[in-house]
Amino acid sequence: MEDIEIAQRNEANEIQPITKIAADLGLTADEVEQYGPYKAKISTAALQRMRKRPNGKLVLVTAINPTPAGEGKSTVAVGLADAMHRMGQKAVLALREPSLGPVMGMKGGATGGGYAQVVPMADINLHFTGDMHALTSAVNTLAALIDNHLQQGNALHIDPRRIQWKRVLDINDRALRHVNIGLGGPTSGVPREDGFDITVASELMAVLCLAEDLADLKQRIARIVVAYTYDRTPVTVDMLGVTGAITMLLKDAIKPNLVQTLEHTPVLIHGGPFANIAHGCNSVVATRTALELGDVAITEAGFGADLGAEKFLDIKAPVLGKTPDAVVLVATLRALKYNGGVARRDLQATDPAAVRAGFANLQRHIHNLQQYGLPVVVAINAFANDDPAEMQLVQDLCADQGVKAVPVTVWADGGAGGAALATAVNDALSTQHQFQPLYTDTMPVEDKIQTVVQKIYGGRDVAYARKAQRALKTIKANGWDHLPICVAKTQYSFSDDPKLLGAPTNFTIHVSDIIPKVGAGFLVVMTGTVLTMPGLPKHPAANDIDIDANGHITGLF
Amino acid sequence: MEDIEIAQRNEANEIQPITKIAADLGLTADEVEQYGPYKAKISTAALQRMRKRPNGKLVLVTAINPTPAGEGKSTVAVGLADAMHRMGQKAVLALREPSLGPVMGMKGGATGGGYAQVVPMADINLHFTGDMHALTSAVNTLAALIDNHLQQGNALHIDPRRIQWKRVLDINDRALRHVNIGLGGPTSGVPREDGFDITVASELMAVLCLAEDLADLKQRIARIVVAYTYDRTPVTVDMLGVTGAITMLLKDAIKPNLVQTLEHTPVLIHGGPFANIAHGCNSVVATRTALELGDVAITEAGFGADLGAEKFLDIKAPVLGKTPDAVVLVATLRALKYNGGVARRDLQATDPAAVRAGFANLQRHIHNLQQYGLPVVVAINAFANDDPAEMQLVQDLCADQGVKAVPVTVWADGGAGGAALATAVNDALSTQHQFQPLYTDTMPVEDKIQTVVQKIYGGRDVAYARKAQRALKTIKANGWDHLPICVAKTQYSFSDDPKLLGAPTNFTIHVSDIIPKVGAGFLVVMTGTVLTMPGLPKHPAANDIDIDANGHITGLF
Repeated sequence: MEDIEIAQRNEANEIQPITKIAADLGLTADEVEQYGPYKAKISTAALQRMRKRPNGKLVLVTAINPTPAGEGKSTVAVGLADAMHRMGQKAVLALREPSLGPVMGMKGGATGGGYAQVVPMADINLHFTGDMHALTSAVNTLAALIDNHLQQGNALHIDPRRIQWKRVLDINDRALRHVNIGLGGPTSGVPREDGFDITVASELMAVLCLAEDLADLKQRIARIVVAYTYDRTPVTVDMLGVTGAITMLLKDAIKPNLVQTLEHTPVLIHGGPFANIAHGCNSVVATRTALELGDVAITEAGFGADLGAEKFLDIKAPVLGKTPDAVVLVATLRALKYNGGVARRDLQATDPAAVRAGFANLQRHIHNLQQYGLPVVVAINAFANDDPAEMQLVQDLCADQGVKAVPVTVWADGGAGGAALATAVNDALSTQHQFQPLYTDTMPVEDKIQTVVQKIYGGRDVAYARKAQRALKTIKANGWDHLPICVAKTQYSFSDDPKLLGAPTNFTIHVSDIIPKVGAGFLVVMTGTVLTMPGLPKHPAANDIDIDANGHITGLF
Repeated sequence: MEDIEIAQRNEANEIQPITKIAADLGLTADEVEQYGPYKAKISTAALQRMRKRPNGKLVLVTAINPTPAGEGKSTVAVGLADAMHRMGQKAVLALREPSLGPVMGMKGGATGGGYAQVVPMADINLHFTGDMHALTSAVNTLAALIDNHLQQGNALHIDPRRIQWKRVLDINDRALRHVNIGLGGPTSGVPREDGFDITVASELMAVLCLAEDLADLKQRIARIVVAYTYDRTPVTVDMLGVTGAITMLLKDAIKPNLVQTLEHTPVLIHGGPFANIAHGCNSVVATRTALELGDVAITEAGFGADLGAEKFLDIKAPVLGKTPDAVVLVATLRALKYNGGVARRDLQATDPAAVRAGFANLQRHIHNLQQYGLPVVVAINAFANDDPAEMQLVQDLCADQGVKAVPVTVWADGGAGGAALATAVNDALSTQHQFQPLYTDTMPVEDKIQTVVQKIYGGRDVAYARKAQRALKTIKANGWDHLPICVAKTQYSFSDDPKLLGAPTNFTIHVSDIIPKVGAGFLVVMTGTVLTMPGLPKHPAANDIDIDANGHITGLF
């Protein structure tokens, strides 16, 4: 059965009014702003009231280096929350907001899967409460204001070749990657080279996700560097005089969105920045609210733990003011085999030797998380044809490391399939631990990078391209070197080579550029090229989607 | 006091929950989908239930040829509805949805003004319920799918030089008018010339506004011609196989939005196509719903009556299946003087001779509407410094034509300032009348154009450029000549010359091109160039807008 079919059947029969979900969390009807019967934003007044509450425990869900199909982090996170909910715990999930682009392309939605889904599934994957659209509007309004500044005399002396701020669409549209704009003569703009990103790749998404409230959002927007002048002085939004207008466009987008799982567990879905050129976590506002509303807050971070968890711990946690009390590391037999050297087409076959080889990848992630001082539980996300002996092998290998590994069948069974995981996580939550930060703000940028490369990736050293060396100088000259780093790297390997699977060592990380994101508050360390505007495949998902006269949708994944 | 200040004070003190407004209309809580406490969409089930109700009376609000500042059609429409509401009538207003672009530029919002406003003002002018954003997404998704078709082998043999479908943003962004896309090598698309329009200028907006329901929307989308092949065969959305996906993106956008005036009169704000290259009216769904919910439905059409009313009567009314029972023709002293030859900077000065001269413009609009067999009432939208003698002069001149003219002060006084107008409109509504269509579907396209030029504009003849002649052949060859025409012309003159004010005669209309919009169901007759992507001014409104930490907005008009 398709995910959308499971979701729509449930929505017709069992979904609860969002006001009921809110009431169970102690929110009054006045404190939620409904978007239809099953979605709501939490009001600013409610958020302010919550700030006085004590925090619950925080669980971070992350994963080993995945196969290109993904290993089901969101599905496991949903299933874990449902399992705790069934056990009578007050669990609140905080997830990322899906992008519309992939829905029409290949990847499909991002609301979990099977019986571990968040609903209303179609709405969340399409326009939801309009956050992505508000961001798209704000990013493009700012871009239009920059080009208008050029057109109207360029009082700030902006160098049209050094405009950093790109337009965005929440669409997979490769034809917009490289464009020439401002053509058609003097009344139609100043000609220049430009390009569009997908909305979630914009710095403004990261800004929204790291802002603590509307006031902090405004300050971060004011600081965004949109361009450089002819003499290389940074030009900020503040200098353009449009901070208020851009902030206004996000006045509702900053409020977290409340929805529910198929099992009526409350979920905050809010914000979804890229996990390479940004930090790949849902918003600070949503995670903080989940901590205040629940006894346990469960959240996730994009890609494998080398990217997602590292950025959660080194970028998001300092803003949040809270580190995880336990980490769930999601693995699958197929990802272990893939890391063990098996080709994609052969991942279905039983191959315990490959599982054993690929375990090196899982082992390093466990080690990395333990370096931070965090209790780790491994969740083996089970597929229908998984071999029981291989499942046992992974559990045994983990036990050898002193780590509990638990098979979960939440896709097929919902919360019931996550009961053992919930028990293991609760055990981990009661463990004494002391968080150890990886690096400090005051370390030189090169040292921060070297630390992440050695301690997390297991690499040897770092090579800087000429462009990256120049960027380091700019960063120091402008006093941006206190910012944490955000490495843009392949998600398939600890190294910067997507084919170097498992647990490689002695490799060099090649830094091609370092891009300061002063509004978001991090330095993007580029390793190779990152595609920030995806394309559509030969047979796009759009060709399989349909809707009938009654609004019933088919073909949406 | 700024409009936003009047609106925000009222919102804090007096605005009613939208469920209360809905209940007063006989809609249950289940029949509205709330978007926050003060906005709602009416559910499909409710719309279907309404279809069984008898229609109320229909009032169309239109205007004389305006000054560049606009003459306050929306404000008068709001004030008239409020006046009827005060008199105990069940009046429902159906207005167009504002575009975000102008809010950041110059024109400002489109929710009436002063004490004749629709609220929540900021929300309606910004993201509202996401209809514009859904349209932007759908238009750009379709564009990405077309470019992806080129990229993936171009099985349909689309001529990249003859792609009709343009991307859109709901932003004033002149630098996107003319762009080159698909640059950067073979993996980043097929290079071609392109350009962006503002969202409201897209055919998809017109399609949404003329669709009767989701099923009709889907059929219209399927018919949209997005390109021509190398051998000039039209390529439709249906041929691309993505009708379902694009329709799905509009599943909520097709539901009309319910809000309220400052005096709690119900308002449906839904859809807002351009009034030149499209038909400039709110949606058929909203107007029909207003007719079913109210004893009197009041709606408006963009620009002067030569464009707005003509298109309402010849394009929208046949789909709606209902013609107006009375027409309110809005005039101002300044617009009469402007039509009487006074320069913009001198419009404040008393000048009865100019008023008398400009009356020729009003007189022709009255005559035109009477040609359709419609009862006409003139509303003189009063400004603070208007001369009472000039006001009386207009009333006298109208009386000479057998038409009632009523001063209204709704900007300053709300519904109380529209009481006399409401009485006059009620008198008109009880008048016996017989609607006379202007032309028939089966007339040749050239005859339809000639009819509008002679009978509405008062012109003599029509000259077709070579391109327009070729377009006529294409239209006939493809069997599109049964469609009504939609003339894209300056709003300032009956002619195609914006400087030819008053009531010119003996002029020629120059048709440069005729663009079939097969999904919307009309032929756009181009007279000169029409800017479908506005630019920002030297000092954009964005520079004056601010929001504080509590979400209080200033500088929004």
